[in-house]
Amino acid sequence: MKRKPLSENSILRKILASCRPSPNSGGVSPSIVLGMGDDAALFRPKTGFETILTCDWFLEGTHFLRHKHPPDSVGWKCLARALSDIAAMGGTPRCFLLSLALPGSLTGRWLDAFLVGLRRASRKFQCVLAGGDTTRRDKVLINVTVIGEVKTGRAVLRSGARAGDTLYVSGQLGEAELGLLVLKQSQKPPKARNPLTRRHLYPEPRMALGQWVSDARLVSSMMDLSDGLSSDLTRLCAASGIGARVEMPRIPRVRIPKHALLAGIDSAHLALHGGDDYELLFTVPPHRLHIVPASFQGVPLTPIGKITKRREMVILEHSGRQRQLVAGGWDPFLK
Amino acid sequence: MKRKPLSENSILRKILASCRPSPNSGGVSPSIVLGMGDDAALFRPKTGFETILTCDWFLEGTHFLRHKHPPDSVGWKCLARALSDIAAMGGTPRCFLLSLALPGSLTGRWLDAFLVGLRRASRKFQCVLAGGDTTRRDKVLINVTVIGEVKTGRAVLRSGARAGDTLYVSGQLGEAELGLLVLKQSQKPPKARNPLTRRHLYPEPRMALGQWVSDARLVSSMMDLSDGLSSDLTRLCAASGIGARVEMPRIPRVRIPKHALLAGIDSAHLALHGGDDYELLFTVPPHRLHIVPASFQGVPLTPIGKITKRREMVILEHSGRQRQLVAGGWDPFLK
Repeated sequence: MKRKPLSENSILRKILASCRPSPNSGGVSPSIVLGMGDDAALFRPKTGFETILTCDWFLEGTHFLRHKHPPDSVGWKCLARALSDIAAMGGTPRCFLLSLALPGSLTGRWLDAFLVGLRRASRKFQCVLAGGDTTRRDKVLINVTVIGEVKTGRAVLRSGARAGDTLYVSGQLGEAELGLLVLKQSQKPPKARNPLTRRHLYPEPRMALGQWVSDARLVSSMMDLSDGLSSDLTRLCAASGIGARVEMPRIPRVRIPKHALLAGIDSAHLALHGGDDYELLFTVPPHRLHIVPASFQGVPLTPIGKITKRREMVILEHSGRQRQLVAGGWDPFLK
Repeated sequence: MKRKPLSENSILRKILASCRPSPNSGGVSPSIVLGMGDDAALFRPKTGFETILTCDWFLEGTHFLRHKHPPDSVGWKCLARALSDIAAMGGTPRCFLLSLALPGSLTGRWLDAFLVGLRRASRKFQCVLAGGDTTRRDKVLINVTVIGEVKTGRAVLRSGARAGDTLYVSGQLGEAELGLLVLKQSQKPPKARNPLTRRHLYPEPRMALGQWVSDARLVSSMMDLSDGLSSDLTRLCAASGIGARVEMPRIPRVRIPKHALLAGIDSAHLALHGGDDYELLFTVPPHRLHIVPASFQGVPLTPIGKITKRREMVILEHSGRQRQLVAGGWDPFLK
């Protein structure tokens, strides 16, 4: 049975009702003075803190596929990936704005499941919905703006890396890209608990790690890995005006299970150029190296190379051969 | 000659270079600590102020037409309409985030002209570009987030209207809708100075009026008119839990020039239901009525009716007949 699409006001009410903070969460967000329903949202910044602002596209056909990605994964991931930018600054998320365009036919069950995933991420990372904009469109278009906070002067930038610093990554690289390959090849809808696709569908931004790194004044620079190590490291090097020498054998990378469909997939390639991992890439000055633990809350922290004065990115292969590392990750304009 | 599309990094550099505050503007934005180029932007809020957050879609095919709307109008309007939400809260804009998706073929001249319009609005309303996200797409998709500020407790909400208050509008209603009709019917590209299309292509958010109204504590509620008086007044009434009685003859409305193509267009219909005017709708309590001037900085302020206890919207026609006013403005899901 085909139902009439909801009006814009009804959709707003649905979103609002779904993402209202739970009564038990109490003081989750005393900073939101006024949420959805007025011309704009009102946010009361904490004294002694700076506000972090970030926005992220999440578009059907570009960032996800309607027939492959379950709607609750779309809801989770559109917020999680924007939160990752807050983590990369060492900040704490406070609230977000959701801009959502969707077909009238998706304002029922699809929207409900989308909101389940969105609410789960919103509660887990204590980032409340403060406002947004909705409109109709033939494809699902999402833009999420996250507002976070960090103690004044404590934000961790991309531009602070210096020659001699050690380059670290969190987690295992290439897992999300492998998940995408599995998802594309599979005929069946993905299971939420399938470890092969979970990291692609429900990425975990490294909020606690980012905040700890900022509090401990551990690092000289930090960013999140969204487009792939080779592309993102290029940006860190450009922002800091330095180069890097990465040792391939040290890069913690996805394990590819023995599976006919996955034959020929190279884990080194996934780890270097695969997108969507949302791990943190950071540089530690020599005198702080002794503070870095081997893992943080179960997530491994691995030194993968050194920052160099010479402005080029070099990779040392397993064979001992050196070659230039060229950005080969995700660039929507060059794909 | 077909050029290669720019890479995402090159597009970001182009946007950044175009929207950098001019050196002479000096202290336009001491509040932006860190703009584009890092994971997120950093904004230093002023003590004693609340932060206003708003975001707005501006989508090719939904909100503008690529072959009808000049790119500099798209640049101007995507920011201007989001700024209007800040005006409606009585706030001052500080910075904005630009999310832009566009085809590779538009990364040259089209993007340049778009940025001219965007920069003009950014400078005129002193709202600097702080960050954003770009990607490739077959249609132009824009989402703008504006961050503004207002003295703590001074934001003007939609929910404060009380029975007995007088309902006001700024400007002339229906002008933007008429402009859209003219634009759609015209074979030639629009001229920037054509007064018939100017209000549609280059709307002026009522920033100064909104701020004055907030400073003077003049009004009990306020919102901007983006979807049309009938639809927006419905929202104000719902938020305040009241009704309204509007006198049709009092509504300041667009004058329709004598022109064969415009024959049969009803100015009353445009004024009641036409969208995109970005005028302010506000309510004034009886004891503040004597402060309201007839105009503010050349923009007329016109009393058009009264707020009523009974929760319904009634319109008094020229004939003296009363009828219910039904929301008939822009709703993307019901069009």
